[in-house]
Amino acid sequence: MSSVSKYQLKIVPLKANNNLLMKRITLLILMLTLCYACKESKSENSSTKDSETELKGETPEFAIVIHGGAGTILKKNMTPEKEAAYNAVLEEAIRTGYDILKNGGTSLDAVTKTINVMEDSPLFNAGKGSVFTNAETNELDASIMDGQTLNAGASAGTTTVRNPIDLARAVMDNSPHVMLSGKGAETFAQEHGLDLVAPDYFYTENRFNSLKRAKDQEKIELDHDDQQASFYDPEIKNFKYGTVGCAALDKNGNLAAGTSTGGMTNKRWGRIGDAPIIGSGTYANNETCAVSSTGWGEYFIRAQVAHDISAMIEYKGVSLAEAAYEVIHNKMGKLGGTGGIVAVDKNGEMVFEFNTEGMYRASMNDQGDIKVEIYEKQ
Amino acid sequence: MSSVSKYQLKIVPLKANNNLLMKRITLLILMLTLCYACKESKSENSSTKDSETELKGETPEFAIVIHGGAGTILKKNMTPEKEAAYNAVLEEAIRTGYDILKNGGTSLDAVTKTINVMEDSPLFNAGKGSVFTNAETNELDASIMDGQTLNAGASAGTTTVRNPIDLARAVMDNSPHVMLSGKGAETFAQEHGLDLVAPDYFYTENRFNSLKRAKDQEKIELDHDDQQASFYDPEIKNFKYGTVGCAALDKNGNLAAGTSTGGMTNKRWGRIGDAPIIGSGTYANNETCAVSSTGWGEYFIRAQVAHDISAMIEYKGVSLAEAAYEVIHNKMGKLGGTGGIVAVDKNGEMVFEFNTEGMYRASMNDQGDIKVEIYEKQ
Repeated sequence: MSSVSKYQLKIVPLKANNNLLMKRITLLILMLTLCYACKESKSENSSTKDSETELKGETPEFAIVIHGGAGTILKKNMTPEKEAAYNAVLEEAIRTGYDILKNGGTSLDAVTKTINVMEDSPLFNAGKGSVFTNAETNELDASIMDGQTLNAGASAGTTTVRNPIDLARAVMDNSPHVMLSGKGAETFAQEHGLDLVAPDYFYTENRFNSLKRAKDQEKIELDHDDQQASFYDPEIKNFKYGTVGCAALDKNGNLAAGTSTGGMTNKRWGRIGDAPIIGSGTYANNETCAVSSTGWGEYFIRAQVAHDISAMIEYKGVSLAEAAYEVIHNKMGKLGGTGGIVAVDKNGEMVFEFNTEGMYRASMNDQGDIKVEIYEKQ
Repeated sequence: MSSVSKYQLKIVPLKANNNLLMKRITLLILMLTLCYACKESKSENSSTKDSETELKGETPEFAIVIHGGAGTILKKNMTPEKEAAYNAVLEEAIRTGYDILKNGGTSLDAVTKTINVMEDSPLFNAGKGSVFTNAETNELDASIMDGQTLNAGASAGTTTVRNPIDLARAVMDNSPHVMLSGKGAETFAQEHGLDLVAPDYFYTENRFNSLKRAKDQEKIELDHDDQQASFYDPEIKNFKYGTVGCAALDKNGNLAAGTSTGGMTNKRWGRIGDAPIIGSGTYANNETCAVSSTGWGEYFIRAQVAHDISAMIEYKGVSLAEAAYEVIHNKMGKLGGTGGIVAVDKNGEMVFEFNTEGMYRASMNDQGDIKVEIYEKQ
């Protein structure tokens, strides 16, 4: 109230003093500018709401962020050896993309090659290490999107393509289509010289045991008429919805995102989750951001997670951190879904956001600052 | 300048005149309110931009709008008999949904049963009358979404399910999944007692001839190294991307949308278009609108057509008509795509929007006013 006690606005008849008039007009303009600035600053404050998951940095030349799945990943259930193994592959993966970006490569190449490292590791539910379907097969999905052209590629339900993200990329680059599926997608992969493997390449004992436990659990569930119970077995839950993904910004300002997965343990009926769905599992747009999702795919489709984050930035003018928080916690989360996203925006701001106990994740900026994390609270 | 010539703002030391002070504070508040009102009015003006395709009405109790595909549909290529046949099925379809809504049925039931009528007609590229794949099979896709719960169901690449929209509905209602595909989806359909048919149920001579022409055309294209040439054959182009779809608002204020298709003539590699993709071919949200798409599916996925219209309403506060115009003409259209949408918003406003020469379409409001149209300019 101190300013009010000293000054007030008064409307007075105009006197013929031009000098005074000019001063007062200037003052009026100043006041209006101040009002406007206040309003802008208010909207900025709400959009730069500090998020624990926001990774701070100075407008970087390039940036890369990855995930290796989200779920009930608790430190108490992890051995130091297992933790070290995850950290090592996450670091190898992100450094692969970082080197490409540092040397002036494209975000699309960084995303593809970074995901390849995680697909080739049995630790993650993508490529080698994919979970088993109810029919004891491995059916893999992937998608990729180019933020510059809004071109995209995806494949669903392949059993012989070693690196599904390469197939998604080939669909984008070498076909008029966005999404191919099943045997047809494998024929396309063969026609385009992709690396094919026998279906048992994807076998890992760990994942096969998960399927057996899931089936045993399902019998109990059916007996108890409670089809959701398997979600409470942490080991199954972890790999029920795991994926790998990457989002990157390159030196030319081009964004890209990609996602690859084995889907959910014990899946049947040719179930397709969010990973190969553009707008749900993957989205990139140079005007906004690049996003890769991981989690309970059905909820990520219903909440349109990846595109909704972009749309909120585009139409509401909020920051990536705020959009990601809103979509994961207040939209997808409130529907009942669990999981998270990694994302980078056109300014190189990187975000991890998830509503699970953990998410395998890493980020690197153009200074080479690396962050590799697993649990909610490191 | 007349007010400036009479009055001006002046900052003066505060005098101990409470009455005057109150008057001046009231004046200041009035001025700020005026400023704010101006700003609001400006943003409202931009959102109520008149659209030719907007169907006017008084806040109706319910509303329903359908399409039967968009393409190069020209009056000069149409016989009166063919035109009458299309109009008759469009009218039968929309009256089916109208009756359900009028009797207090749900928008989901109206959407499903309305689409069934078009699926059962050989005139449209969905159900009976679906186009042929390169392998001379019919592989059908569909999706449906409930705007009240944001639940959704979809199926891709089925060959024996008579009404794919019923399968999408069953996936939504009776499984924890959103999207099923191929043989697995057919197993699910069988387990849930859906109407199954032999694959040759979908055979129609007309569509088989289209495939033959497309293949002949492709040979010419391959000779000329121009894989896009078939897009210039109007007969092929018409049914290359046709679908059927419906969006409805019921008396309880619940929105729903659904889409069903045979995909594109001569498709291969297990290609999946936008029809079964939630957010691209179909989207419904009680907070905004319900949308069903038809057109060149790849562009509808890349532009996230159905969800983008909803997001623009939600975050930018524009009208359905304005959002639909922007997405079809300035976003999807500028990427190079062709096609259109039908949509209804939470207030019962209905919109047709397309950038092709025609779209089979119809609408009915709660007064029973019916509109059945085919060409761009009726």
